[in-house]
Amino acid sequence: MTTIRQAGPKDHNRIWAILEPIFRAGDTYAVETNIRRNSALAYWMGGTHKTFVAFDSDESLGTYYIGPNHPGGGDHVCNCGFATDLAARGKGIARKMLAHALDTARADGYHAMQFNFVVATNLGALKIWFDNGFEQVGCLPKAFNHPTEGYVDALVLFKTL
Amino acid sequence: MTTIRQAGPKDHNRIWAILEPIFRAGDTYAVETNIRRNSALAYWMGGTHKTFVAFDSDESLGTYYIGPNHPGGGDHVCNCGFATDLAARGKGIARKMLAHALDTARADGYHAMQFNFVVATNLGALKIWFDNGFEQVGCLPKAFNHPTEGYVDALVLFKTL
Repeated sequence: MTTIRQAGPKDHNRIWAILEPIFRAGDTYAVETNIRRNSALAYWMGGTHKTFVAFDSDESLGTYYIGPNHPGGGDHVCNCGFATDLAARGKGIARKMLAHALDTARADGYHAMQFNFVVATNLGALKIWFDNGFEQVGCLPKAFNHPTEGYVDALVLFKTL
Repeated sequence: MTTIRQAGPKDHNRIWAILEPIFRAGDTYAVETNIRRNSALAYWMGGTHKTFVAFDSDESLGTYYIGPNHPGGGDHVCNCGFATDLAARGKGIARKMLAHALDTARADGYHAMQFNFVVATNLGALKIWFDNGFEQVGCLPKAFNHPTEGYVDALVLFKTL
């Protein structure tokens, strides 16, 4: 039974435990691989982001944030970031978090959801986004320096709600 | 004779005088139209941005910033923002600032320059970017709420250096 609820300061350890190996690996997020805990939590949970955690009993499964992709005239389009705990991969957690995020986006009045920078080698994530109606609206040539693949494209995905 | 040099704290008044009417108009930048001076200067000059001012004698003509579009694996692609003083429009200032920014980008080792959100109605800017070799690599449908045109597309432009 997966529960998803909004995160608070008491979830910092849980969230950092999920994010740290993903950011250190540096193969899916454009984040400094040596980012410090406080900076990572500020990025994930700070500013205009609303952040959620997914868990099963007390086991962490994943986390996501949602917020306006731009302020002002762009604030009707949201952006999200998703991270599934390495130990919980292959259980459909990302799909559950996406469904929750789409519900949250509609409830919060957003017109669309945009992912700015999906690394083209991240095929698992791309399959989930395309399965759920996202369209590729942009391709940024060689915009990501992958730790083992070298310079690879990053894709811009968009879904009208 | 247009001079372009890096900006510092003594340029805050000059830069805010250029930015304020542009941000208040809200028809080209996805920025809160009621943004405060300190927030606008933090956005334009803060974080990883290097900021420049263009002037002629002591008359302000424009300002631009350059910085990595993403950290980590994305930091070889730069992003810029350009603002020409309303009183200096039509004098080629934006073209001069772009040429300076491209030189700065190459000197700083960037591989490419990306504009994330060019409002599709901003035809003057688009002509300059296309004239200078930028390509449209993405279109964000109805992603900008224009104060008089309503929801219009925003374009993603990219130029390999």
